[in-house]
Amino acid sequence: MHVHRYEENPLISPADVSPLWEGFEVIGTFNAGIVRLKDEVLMLIRVAERPLTHDPAYVQTAYFDVTTQRAVALSLDMTDPRYDCSDARVVKDSRAGSTLYLTSVSCLRLARSKDGLHFTVDDGAFLLPSTELEQFGIEDPRITPIGDTYYITYSAVSAKGVGVGLASTRDFVTVERHGLIFGPENKDVILFPERIGGLYYALTRPVPKAIGLPEIWIAESPDLLHWGNHRFLLGLREEAWDSGRIGGGAVPLRTEHGWLELYHAADHQDRYCMGAVLLDANDPSKVLARTPGPILQPETDYELNGFFGGVVFSCGILADGDTLRIYYGAADTTMACADLKLSDILAQLVYD
Amino acid sequence: MHVHRYEENPLISPADVSPLWEGFEVIGTFNAGIVRLKDEVLMLIRVAERPLTHDPAYVQTAYFDVTTQRAVALSLDMTDPRYDCSDARVVKDSRAGSTLYLTSVSCLRLARSKDGLHFTVDDGAFLLPSTELEQFGIEDPRITPIGDTYYITYSAVSAKGVGVGLASTRDFVTVERHGLIFGPENKDVILFPERIGGLYYALTRPVPKAIGLPEIWIAESPDLLHWGNHRFLLGLREEAWDSGRIGGGAVPLRTEHGWLELYHAADHQDRYCMGAVLLDANDPSKVLARTPGPILQPETDYELNGFFGGVVFSCGILADGDTLRIYYGAADTTMACADLKLSDILAQLVYD
Repeated sequence: MHVHRYEENPLISPADVSPLWEGFEVIGTFNAGIVRLKDEVLMLIRVAERPLTHDPAYVQTAYFDVTTQRAVALSLDMTDPRYDCSDARVVKDSRAGSTLYLTSVSCLRLARSKDGLHFTVDDGAFLLPSTELEQFGIEDPRITPIGDTYYITYSAVSAKGVGVGLASTRDFVTVERHGLIFGPENKDVILFPERIGGLYYALTRPVPKAIGLPEIWIAESPDLLHWGNHRFLLGLREEAWDSGRIGGGAVPLRTEHGWLELYHAADHQDRYCMGAVLLDANDPSKVLARTPGPILQPETDYELNGFFGGVVFSCGILADGDTLRIYYGAADTTMACADLKLSDILAQLVYD
Repeated sequence: MHVHRYEENPLISPADVSPLWEGFEVIGTFNAGIVRLKDEVLMLIRVAERPLTHDPAYVQTAYFDVTTQRAVALSLDMTDPRYDCSDARVVKDSRAGSTLYLTSVSCLRLARSKDGLHFTVDDGAFLLPSTELEQFGIEDPRITPIGDTYYITYSAVSAKGVGVGLASTRDFVTVERHGLIFGPENKDVILFPERIGGLYYALTRPVPKAIGLPEIWIAESPDLLHWGNHRFLLGLREEAWDSGRIGGGAVPLRTEHGWLELYHAADHQDRYCMGAVLLDANDPSKVLARTPGPILQPETDYELNGFFGGVVFSCGILADGDTLRIYYGAADTTMACADLKLSDILAQLVYD
């Protein structure tokens, strides 16, 4: 498998983006959706901002105030026994173990490029949290073009849980909101780009508590807004690179062999790689083949080191003949891209 | 609040029901849905069976083999360090803490009554697990009549997670399956008995892992099969009887003041009671009022002692004028009923 990383990676770094909120700094520009629109390539970036820290005795958390439409910093006393501050990303309830606050808040911002490699970030946000169910931020967008509309799925995070929001746009200027299409706990939801046998399909990634693991499921819809017939699709593999958690990645690509899905997975050491799975063209709930190993794994400095190191995480690809350009978040910090051959990936697939 | 428990409670006990499977015993006849059909009252009972135990060195678990359509016992070596057998209901992965097996398997069986008090249990099952996603059993049915059809929602349990299945029947003889309408982890889903503003509504109970608590949400559907616009509805109250977990109970009852929902909740000691909440008649996502205390709580011997003691858990009520007959599972073991006055419950509601 030949992986050609772009020589000027990363494409976008936190230093390239001005914070939206006074008293905040940008710490992540990552996990972006990607799409062609007319003569441009649009990248919809998850931009994470955190409050500038002043007093080391306090941990700074952040949330979005829907009423004032601004991010707000909230200082918590690190010595309070109710708080577990051992994970830099979150503050947990030290008794229950559940997450109480996030230390950053993410919004979605647009960047534009003529060549798909050199991007300019728009001023302002493209999508801000809009309800109490998004008060901890909106994350990890995927963009699926269907007809003349672009559908954006994203993780909607709040104290009530992590669900999946849907928004749509025809021009990336005005946006329509469609609420949460999946309730907690779910993320990494990706819409297929066309109806299959009369129905829309989505890859989902439930995060069950009592029974089950973070694995990939599939659901059906007549209208993209309402979803049913939930079925298990693709699971973890013991002792492998995809033994810890697994979820959808890029928008599925129709090939002559079936739907090719580039998915992400992590092992028990939280090392995130990308793999590939082939689904039946006429029934995407049927898994035909899967790559035994990863097709992309963290190797470079910008993939190995960052806010959360050892991560490659793609939310979108652009296909051009036999070339797949994989756009991916690196180390939960920057955006990068790499070119792979579709034929190479298909050759790696092992059929059941 | 006057609660009149039926003098001959429990209505149904494990001793009243013959096991479906050779080598198994019935240990629970509980959490039944209830409905009137012609001149009968039908009770759809969750019947839990567990393998008869022979060797104390082994823990017996059970699952349903979909291919052979039979329950199967599986012996596990209790000394294997992979297994945590400390909870009599389940075997957990001792490392990950997740549930690997259940020690019983539940199917749904019908009982019939002319007076709503004296029931005869049908031979055989009414609903058996039908897919791999139901291999650990089907549990806690609710029956919602809509038009001339009875819709049955139930928890579908498997190693992959706990989702919510939907089945429908017009006569309680033939049944149609509709797959999982909610993926993991979700349970205690109850359909409203009519369209409201053109849409169907369901109470749901996500069980999130990373963020959030087991609380009540609400979702919408155009067709009962596909669901969207998930919103938070009703949460826990600290230091109260409903501080630990909360979920829908009976099918919502339309009153002149709004939709009355009798819900279940537990405190941090897993003591399960029933409370009431009033939802807006035209927009059931709006909470109007709630009872500060429980309307029914475990007090009698059959409620305090059993397979899991200290539980009253209703999946259905029958209304007759001002009398609400609450059918409820007691101590995860038997079915009982109690009569309350609708007017008493409405008088206990405290408006926001």
